[in-house]
Amino acid sequence: MRPTGDGIPFEKAEYDRRIALVKDEMWRREMDTLLISEPSNICYLTGYEAFSFYVFQTLVIHRDIENPIWIGRSMDATSVRRMTYLKADTIRPYTDDYVQSAEWDPVDFLVAQLREVCPTLQALGVEMGAYYYSARTHTKLLASLPNSRFLDAELMVNWIRIRKSPAEIAIMREAGAISDAMISDAVEASSPNMRECDLTAVIYNRMIAGTPEFGGVYASSPPYVLTGSRSGEPHAPWSDRKIGTDTPINVETSACRRRYHAPLSRTIFLGSPPDSYVRLADAVVEGIEAALERVRPGVTCAEIERTWRETIARHGLNKESRLGYSIGIGFPPSWGERTASLRSSDQTVLEAGMAFHMMPGLWLGDTGVTITQSFVVTESGREDLTKFPRRLIVKA
Amino acid sequence: MRPTGDGIPFEKAEYDRRIALVKDEMWRREMDTLLISEPSNICYLTGYEAFSFYVFQTLVIHRDIENPIWIGRSMDATSVRRMTYLKADTIRPYTDDYVQSAEWDPVDFLVAQLREVCPTLQALGVEMGAYYYSARTHTKLLASLPNSRFLDAELMVNWIRIRKSPAEIAIMREAGAISDAMISDAVEASSPNMRECDLTAVIYNRMIAGTPEFGGVYASSPPYVLTGSRSGEPHAPWSDRKIGTDTPINVETSACRRRYHAPLSRTIFLGSPPDSYVRLADAVVEGIEAALERVRPGVTCAEIERTWRETIARHGLNKESRLGYSIGIGFPPSWGERTASLRSSDQTVLEAGMAFHMMPGLWLGDTGVTITQSFVVTESGREDLTKFPRRLIVKA
Repeated sequence: MRPTGDGIPFEKAEYDRRIALVKDEMWRREMDTLLISEPSNICYLTGYEAFSFYVFQTLVIHRDIENPIWIGRSMDATSVRRMTYLKADTIRPYTDDYVQSAEWDPVDFLVAQLREVCPTLQALGVEMGAYYYSARTHTKLLASLPNSRFLDAELMVNWIRIRKSPAEIAIMREAGAISDAMISDAVEASSPNMRECDLTAVIYNRMIAGTPEFGGVYASSPPYVLTGSRSGEPHAPWSDRKIGTDTPINVETSACRRRYHAPLSRTIFLGSPPDSYVRLADAVVEGIEAALERVRPGVTCAEIERTWRETIARHGLNKESRLGYSIGIGFPPSWGERTASLRSSDQTVLEAGMAFHMMPGLWLGDTGVTITQSFVVTESGREDLTKFPRRLIVKA
Repeated sequence: MRPTGDGIPFEKAEYDRRIALVKDEMWRREMDTLLISEPSNICYLTGYEAFSFYVFQTLVIHRDIENPIWIGRSMDATSVRRMTYLKADTIRPYTDDYVQSAEWDPVDFLVAQLREVCPTLQALGVEMGAYYYSARTHTKLLASLPNSRFLDAELMVNWIRIRKSPAEIAIMREAGAISDAMISDAVEASSPNMRECDLTAVIYNRMIAGTPEFGGVYASSPPYVLTGSRSGEPHAPWSDRKIGTDTPINVETSACRRRYHAPLSRTIFLGSPPDSYVRLADAVVEGIEAALERVRPGVTCAEIERTWRETIARHGLNKESRLGYSIGIGFPPSWGERTASLRSSDQTVLEAGMAFHMMPGLWLGDTGVTITQSFVVTESGREDLTKFPRRLIVKA
């Protein structure tokens, strides 16, 4: 493994395998050309990790062309050359005139490149609901290529990504080790006189510094650090007030290594939790343990969720939101893969190599508890990606 | 000013003024209903700051209804109630069944709400090129509302946001103070034996901890910390290699307070810079000083850029990318407002209250230098939002 940010993370053979899987699926769907907008899918297929998706960027895969073609901003082409296996003729940058301009539209540039490079443009796959594939881009493409048929390829690559290779799982273990250290640091640092922002700074510091062996990078979402009456708000920013006493601190976070995530959430209770709160946490732990026990190849997402639901129902509890989701490569704004969810309507069958964040967060308006587990499905059951004990942490 | 994350940041009168400006523009465009997708525009009009835009979320403004209507995920409604002035009947959450599901589409929920709430749906403004307004959402809306006319409202609210109020500028000054501290910390900490990730952790730590008076939150983009041969790559992630000696460290970053940014970039040179590099930095400083001198109401963006371009041309230099962009509220993936740019084709006339990041970054393939300045246009000229000296920092 090369250091973070120093060249391509996997062997070329692994990328070849991934591209072959995508092309197989293109044949099945009778799609000759695929336009990929979602940064995580671009990273999966090329190794590209730069934060350039806030401007127009597309990876083009044509069934009859060996390598993908990157279309993006000229100042980012240097990163493509260093981070990926792409050769000069498949790196096609546009000039800065096209960036956030009222006169120049990068879709025109893309269309010109497609016409030049692609032997056919009969059936174009586009990621209709992807982050960063805008309504404007789609409307312009439809008008510019009136003779092409458009197919919805949303989540097509995401569903291929769902089975991780041993090399990917090795990186996710490293992310998990950093996640564990983030929560350990938070437990050690937290105190009633500390401001929420200062505790969050401790968590960020570890996310980025990583371990002495390997560093981290920014996760796709900020950490959530929720205390007091805000502990029932899953996605609110922290404040600069002092944490105070007799409050839960809900920390939901993830480390990130080479864009792979291993999320981890724990509740740290400062002071003395009321009996009702301890019972709530105990029920959550009983539920997550029962659900994790069920994990093995052949079981469905719905069955896992049902075990959780039936277990907590015995304590009179109910969680409206899903119990978890598939994880892997992520870029802002999300570390979820947007494919399988652990919920009653999801009949996805678990296979070895799939990875999930089981996220039994309960946010009950003015309080909440979060004790979660990231894992990979193995041939015989599961491997936990983080090792932090699954229990309420009480810091008196 | 209340603490970060503790209720709405501005007086209700300021939000009333903003909503009135939007409704005026809707009348001008003959638009009865406006659907806002861009999180920064939702924040501008309501105060809402939570990280919930990775799932479907829309703010509805109808010309004949006093307050906006928030449509989003049920678990985030608690944050809307705490952070904004919106009343219960205008907070309309959908259940978790709609989240990343193949069966349930939140656009159906939106359409049902529009039909129930809006007295007319004749001409709908949608933000065609906005982050988080997907091709899928637009296609579904078009099909669901066949009797409505659709208008492109992209950047409509962004252009209203471009003139900052005194209360907004006060927050941007606080962000600037944190940005200054981030660069100071980086200068103090950097050394050849430090890993890039450890230096980045120092920068993040200050971004979040802020100052003893006020804390920070996550910026819309990660810091860029580029050393050695990667100093010519503007958006690459840092590595976990040691920084080494005789290298520039290009730090491009921004603090964030209540979602307002004040970006700041500096190059720290560790060791002895070659004469050619010092001349490059001197030319950049000469160029930025000349361009900043030109800033006052009535001058165009293009004129500012021309002064820069002509100044550095005397040293045989040329920058292909734009010289800067409008700044203010931002959410991932961008702290730019996507409106005015400092470039030769932009005839926007500067007015008091506009804020820019002048970003004369030169990335020359295998090296680069970044010495930048965020400022607000004042009646008489400009106010710098950060105070760090504009010069190459050499740390022997």
